[in-house]
Amino acid sequence: MKNVLVLMSVEDRHRKKIEAAGEGCRFVYSSPDEVTDREIQEANVIMGQVDATRILASEQLELLQLESAGTDAYIVPGVLNSKTILTNATGAYNQAVAEHAFALTMMLIKKLHLYRDDQRNALWNDRGTVSSLADSTVAVVGLGDIGQHYASLVKAMGAYVIGVKRRASDPPECVDELIMTSDLDRVFPRADVIMSILPNTAATRYIYKPESFERMKDSAVFINCGRGNAVASDVLYQALKEKQIACAGIDVTEIEPLPADSPLWDLENLVITPHISGGHHLPATFERIVEICAYNLSAWLNGRPLKNEVDFTTGYKK
Amino acid sequence: MKNVLVLMSVEDRHRKKIEAAGEGCRFVYSSPDEVTDREIQEANVIMGQVDATRILASEQLELLQLESAGTDAYIVPGVLNSKTILTNATGAYNQAVAEHAFALTMMLIKKLHLYRDDQRNALWNDRGTVSSLADSTVAVVGLGDIGQHYASLVKAMGAYVIGVKRRASDPPECVDELIMTSDLDRVFPRADVIMSILPNTAATRYIYKPESFERMKDSAVFINCGRGNAVASDVLYQALKEKQIACAGIDVTEIEPLPADSPLWDLENLVITPHISGGHHLPATFERIVEICAYNLSAWLNGRPLKNEVDFTTGYKK
Repeated sequence: MKNVLVLMSVEDRHRKKIEAAGEGCRFVYSSPDEVTDREIQEANVIMGQVDATRILASEQLELLQLESAGTDAYIVPGVLNSKTILTNATGAYNQAVAEHAFALTMMLIKKLHLYRDDQRNALWNDRGTVSSLADSTVAVVGLGDIGQHYASLVKAMGAYVIGVKRRASDPPECVDELIMTSDLDRVFPRADVIMSILPNTAATRYIYKPESFERMKDSAVFINCGRGNAVASDVLYQALKEKQIACAGIDVTEIEPLPADSPLWDLENLVITPHISGGHHLPATFERIVEICAYNLSAWLNGRPLKNEVDFTTGYKK
Repeated sequence: MKNVLVLMSVEDRHRKKIEAAGEGCRFVYSSPDEVTDREIQEANVIMGQVDATRILASEQLELLQLESAGTDAYIVPGVLNSKTILTNATGAYNQAVAEHAFALTMMLIKKLHLYRDDQRNALWNDRGTVSSLADSTVAVVGLGDIGQHYASLVKAMGAYVIGVKRRASDPPECVDELIMTSDLDRVFPRADVIMSILPNTAATRYIYKPESFERMKDSAVFINCGRGNAVASDVLYQALKEKQIACAGIDVTEIEPLPADSPLWDLENLVITPHISGGHHLPATFERIVEICAYNLSAWLNGRPLKNEVDFTTGYKK
């Protein structure tokens, strides 16, 4: 009998769905804060965000199904036994994160952040010309599920979409053009909007350098809803302060929470949201996470291929 | 020979286009501020926003082609001779105004206005759940060109769209359901977003009453990019202050500019932009205005039907 440890805030209907998928298993429900070391070590399956430092490469652990899309903490050597299967909940967050990035994009190109600031000063003040996605080239850097969903949204607004991804493939329908990440530099001078939705891997850390922003249009809008360390805080600060690009919207920062004394807070041409694009902020997200959990539990018990299996060496889907 | 008075900031390429359409006419270029009374009185055609109080029902004036979509000032009795044809530039503003209203909608449902406020206080603060247009019913009140364009944008995001218009017709493709303005009250309890894009007419003045907001969902988002007097400032203030609806975004106010001491400025759940959704804020808009001017000048000279002819009695397109 397999021990399944569920560390998510499930309601009755979610329990029913998961238990139906894991017939014959023994289910233990707890939370990341309240779970005991013994419960962790005895689990054959964990669903949810367990503290990575408490797994200790458990040999019992056969399947770790994360609630998150990000896998950074779990692909560090020594966290998981090499035999453990790691799956994430990528896909569940597509809609929430893509729509948040899209809302940031719309807000910035229509200067709504500046009008909000003026409102706080009771100022009826014309901020000048705006742009339209219908006349824009949008580069989507990272063409996973979220990137593709965002691409489809900006395409629906009439944008010309350049997808940027690691591996060559046929372009998905949501992009007009596909470019390899190795050629990222070539995209910067062409894009009116650069939306970055890269995971945290060795290859993506600090991928945006001072030269990257220098190569971008001075009218460019930069969006980051991936991982904060894709760009160093001081690099982003300089680019915005010196108006190398027009503005940026970020849901992630190099250090989180962003320290209260960071100069980023005060930039007029930067909009910061506190890493809330994903999570459970959109109610539909959690329903999708539970569906993935149930699917993978059943698939694993019955020897079928799992969804969202993560390659330890790259942090990407296998 | 017809005298054509152009009161718009045209560049060479615009002059060429207009003059090609008005072969044989005499063209005078000026601006609303600099134009003389004599130039106004001698004009057979005026293109642009002439001060309505200076037209004095001129009998010379055969065609007034406005640069604006709004016609309020010109349909007041005594302004235009009954033989003058009035055309506006509706259509040119579709994209700009619809996209602005759409950006306000996205900003509000994703709580980006609240995150902007928190940013100004260097606060990394989770503002809780958000919603998605994909799970929303959007009522578009006023289904002219701008309303239809907005409807197509929210529909592309997955919304269920209820169009509200004065006259019965087959529903255009951009809406899922059509309701008469006389049944507007029935829409309020159903809509997650109410976007108002009504012109200023006797029938639309103060169309949103205290009871209207009482009937709306407490989670509703109200957007007004039409005319400010569709809702009295104190009525909107009460509805937002008492949280009868979740939030609102308005580009127009009952009195414009909004007085500096208006309590509306300070509402956290209201976003105000200073009537900038139209104008020439989107560069594509002016190009479209010039196209309409050229088309209508040629059509008028050649006895063909004009675009955007306005019915003095309703303020709507004929």
